[in-house]
Amino acid sequence: MTHLYGIDARSGERLEPPVPETTPAEVAERCAAADRAAPALAALPLGTRARLLEAVAAGLDAVADELIGSADTETALGRPTLEAELARTTNQLRLLAEEVRRPDFLSGRTEQGPDGTPSFHRALLPIGPVAVYAASNFPLALAVAGSDTAAALAAGCPVVVKAHPGHPLTSRLVDEAVTGALREAGAPDGTFSVVHGMAAGQALITDPHIRAASFTGSQAGGRALFDAAASRPDPIPFYGELGSVNPVFISRAAASARRAEIVSGFVTAATRYVGQLCTNPGLLFLPAGHGLEEALAAELSEVPAAPLLNRRILEGFRQGVQRLTGAADPLVAVTDGPHLFRTTSRDFLERPELSEECFGPASVLVTYEDEAELLAAAAQLPGSLTATLHAEPSDAALVGRLLPVLTRKVGRVVWNGWPTGVAVNRTMHHGGPWPATTSAAHTSIGTESVRRFQVPVTFQDFPGELLPAALRA
Amino acid sequence: MTHLYGIDARSGERLEPPVPETTPAEVAERCAAADRAAPALAALPLGTRARLLEAVAAGLDAVADELIGSADTETALGRPTLEAELARTTNQLRLLAEEVRRPDFLSGRTEQGPDGTPSFHRALLPIGPVAVYAASNFPLALAVAGSDTAAALAAGCPVVVKAHPGHPLTSRLVDEAVTGALREAGAPDGTFSVVHGMAAGQALITDPHIRAASFTGSQAGGRALFDAAASRPDPIPFYGELGSVNPVFISRAAASARRAEIVSGFVTAATRYVGQLCTNPGLLFLPAGHGLEEALAAELSEVPAAPLLNRRILEGFRQGVQRLTGAADPLVAVTDGPHLFRTTSRDFLERPELSEECFGPASVLVTYEDEAELLAAAAQLPGSLTATLHAEPSDAALVGRLLPVLTRKVGRVVWNGWPTGVAVNRTMHHGGPWPATTSAAHTSIGTESVRRFQVPVTFQDFPGELLPAALRA
Repeated sequence: MTHLYGIDARSGERLEPPVPETTPAEVAERCAAADRAAPALAALPLGTRARLLEAVAAGLDAVADELIGSADTETALGRPTLEAELARTTNQLRLLAEEVRRPDFLSGRTEQGPDGTPSFHRALLPIGPVAVYAASNFPLALAVAGSDTAAALAAGCPVVVKAHPGHPLTSRLVDEAVTGALREAGAPDGTFSVVHGMAAGQALITDPHIRAASFTGSQAGGRALFDAAASRPDPIPFYGELGSVNPVFISRAAASARRAEIVSGFVTAATRYVGQLCTNPGLLFLPAGHGLEEALAAELSEVPAAPLLNRRILEGFRQGVQRLTGAADPLVAVTDGPHLFRTTSRDFLERPELSEECFGPASVLVTYEDEAELLAAAAQLPGSLTATLHAEPSDAALVGRLLPVLTRKVGRVVWNGWPTGVAVNRTMHHGGPWPATTSAAHTSIGTESVRRFQVPVTFQDFPGELLPAALRA
Repeated sequence: MTHLYGIDARSGERLEPPVPETTPAEVAERCAAADRAAPALAALPLGTRARLLEAVAAGLDAVADELIGSADTETALGRPTLEAELARTTNQLRLLAEEVRRPDFLSGRTEQGPDGTPSFHRALLPIGPVAVYAASNFPLALAVAGSDTAAALAAGCPVVVKAHPGHPLTSRLVDEAVTGALREAGAPDGTFSVVHGMAAGQALITDPHIRAASFTGSQAGGRALFDAAASRPDPIPFYGELGSVNPVFISRAAASARRAEIVSGFVTAATRYVGQLCTNPGLLFLPAGHGLEEALAAELSEVPAAPLLNRRILEGFRQGVQRLTGAADPLVAVTDGPHLFRTTSRDFLERPELSEECFGPASVLVTYEDEAELLAAAAQLPGSLTATLHAEPSDAALVGRLLPVLTRKVGRVVWNGWPTGVAVNRTMHHGGPWPATTSAAHTSIGTESVRRFQVPVTFQDFPGELLPAALRA
C-alpha cells in the first residue's frame, strides 16, 4: 500500500500520520456504494435532505479548532483567513439547506393542454453519484465538504470526493466529520466518501456509476479530466473551473478621479490568499501617461512575500513569472513573492502568453493610448471568470462599446470594485467561457451551482399520488 | 464544385436542380458573419427578437404548399403528415416568440447583501453563434427552421444550419424563406445561413466562432460530432439527441383490463412516421401467458409496408432487423416493413443488442413471469428519451418500485399513453441519459430548449442604466 503525506507549508516537513492512497478497486467499491445509495437519498423528503446539509455544517463547526489548525499547517494561509473560510464553508451548506426548502427548488411546473391532450409535470431530479475533485487553494470551502459537495448533496446526489494532495490530513478530518454527521442524520450508507491519490482520481472519472464530475484547479489538470469524462463510452458532464486572468479596465476618468482608491484596491485584491485566487486580477488595463504604474509598483513592493500553498504551486508560479519576464517589463520582482509587469496594449496584442493565468501574486499592467486600443485588447482576451470596469458616469459611451465584448467573454462583470471575494448567494455566477471553465452555462459557486447535478424529468398524465415523494409535496 | 441531389423517396430518382456543397472556406465565412452578427442580434430589444421568430413562421406559411410538396417528394411522409409538421414548425416558432416576451425570460434576479456589500443582477445572455445539424425524419420541424433553429434565435444567437442530405431541395426552400423573412424583419446580416455537404458539417463543428451545437440523428453521427466538439482547443457544448428504445411496461392488471386499447395503441405508436420517430416504442414488456403477443402480431401484420425516408435509413433498418432476428423470435416480418420480435425477460438480460435502437417500424416484445423479472430487466436498460407504464390503480406497489429505476434512465415517463407525439410546450422534457442524448440535463423540444443557448452573466454593483438593453426593460 502506498501513502501520501501532508507537508507543513511553512517548513516543508512531512507530517504524520501518512494517509493511505485509495486503490482503483476501492474506488470502484465506493462508487458502487454511492450508486446503491442514490435511490434512497433521492427518495428522502426535501426537509430531511436539508437537515443533512445542516448536520454536515454542524459537524464541521464541532471540530473547527482542529480543522483550522490542520489547514493552516498544510497551506500556510493563516488562522484568520481559515476561520473566515470555515465560516463560508458552513454558511454555504446552510444556504443550500434553505434553498432545498424553497417551494420552487425542483422548478416544478405543471401544464394541461387543450381538452383530450395529456397533462405534464416537469421537475428536477438528482443526476446520480457525483465525483468531486477538491481544490488546493481553499482547503475547506472548495474541498472535501466544499461548495461542490454541498451542491451535489443539495441536489440529492451521493458524492465521492477526490481529496487534494496538498492537504490530506485536513481532508481526513473533514471526511471523518462529514461521514459521522451524515450517519447520525440518517443518510443512506454510501452517500459520501473520500478517496486519495492520483490513481484514485483517474479511476473515479471513468467509473461507470459516476454521472457527473466537478473540479476546481489548473487548466492542465482540468483538461485531462474533461477529456477522460468526454471519451467515456457514456460521456458525462464535467464541470471544471480552471481559473483565469480576470482583466480589469481603468478608464482615463476613473484614473483621474479615484487614483489612490484604485491603487490600494488593486494591491489588496492582487495579494489576497497570496494571489492564489481564481478571481485574482492578473491583467490591469491603464491609461498611458497617468503614472499609475509607478504608484502601483510602489505600493505592491511593500507587500512582503508569503509562503505559497505548496511546492508544486511554487514551481508553477516560478515558471509563470519566467514566462511573463520574457514578455513584459518587470516593475516589481520579489523572489517567490509579489510581481508586477508592464507592457503596452500594442505589444499585448502580439503576446498571447500575457493572457495566460500565472497562479500566485503576479499581475501585468497594460497601458493603452486611446479607446480604440483598449477595445482591440479587450476583443483579444480569452474567457475569464470576471472582468472589472473602473469608470465614471462620463464614460457611458465607452462602457456601451466595451460591455458587449466583455459579456461574451466573462461570467461576472464588476463595476468599480474588485473581482476577488466571490459572494455565495442566489445571484452569483462563478463561471465563464473556456478556458475559465469547461462549461460556460454553469456556476460552481452560489445556489445555482446545484443545477449542475439535477436533470429534468417530465411525467405525462401521471397520477399525482404515484409521483416520487419529493414531487408530491 | 461538387453537388448534392435530392432523391424522390418513392421512385428513387434524382431530383433537379442539384444543390452545391458548401466548401470549408465558405463555412468559415458564414461562421465569421454569424460572429459579427452576434452582438447586434443580442442587442435587439426582446420584442424585436420575438418579431423575428414570428416573421420566420409567416415566411414559412407563405410558401406552405411548395414546402409540403417538396418535403413529400424527398421523404415520402405524405402530405397530411407534412401539413401537421409544418403547423408544428410554425407553432413552435410562435410559442418561442411568446416565451421571449415573458417578463421572466432572461431569469433576471437581483440581490442586495448586507449593508456595505455589493449588489448583484444575474441574467441569461446569448451564448453566441450556434451550429444546428438538421434531422432526417422531420424535414420541417427538426430541420433548417426547426426547433433547434427556433431555440437558438429565441436565445438571441445567430445560426448556421447544416442541412440534412436527405432533403436538400426542401432545405433550400426553407433557407430562402427564412433568409428573406429575417432580412425584411431587420435581423442583422449573418444571423442565419445554411450549409450543405459532409465536409461542411465537419468544418462547422470545429469553427472557432461556433459557441454551441445541436443535433438530432444517429448515435454514430452524434458521437462523432460530440467527440469533435469536445476535442476542440476550446471545447463547446454539443447537444445531441440520438434516439432510443423507449421501453413500455404493461402490468398484468393493465393487460387484463385494457387489452384491446393496448394492442391498438401500440400498433399506432409503433408505425407512426413509418416507425421513424426518436420516441418510437422499441421494447414492450408484457406479462407472460396473456396471449398479447399474438394479438399484437395479428394487428401489426395488417399494417402495410411504406417507403422509408431514404436509402441510408432503409439500409440501417435492414441491418437492425438482421441484428434482432439473430437475437429474438420474429413474429411479424414484412419485407422492408413492420417487424415484431419476441423474447423472454430472462433471455433479454443476456442480449444487450435487444436494447439498441432499430430506427424504423421494428419492436421487440419481452415477456416477464413476475415483478422481479420485470424490475431486473428495467434495471439493465440503457438511457432512453421515454419510458411508458400501462398500469392500474392496484399496481401502486409495482409503480413505487419501478419508478425510481426509470427516473434515472429516461427524461419522460408516460402513464397509460404512448411516447410518440411529443408536445411542444413549457413542460416538455425531450432528453435523457446517454445514449438517448449527449447531455441529460437539456431538452431539444419545448420552451426549455432555449436554455441550451443561454449563459448566465452576473453584473456586480452595475448602474442600471448601463446594463445591456435587454436587461434594462
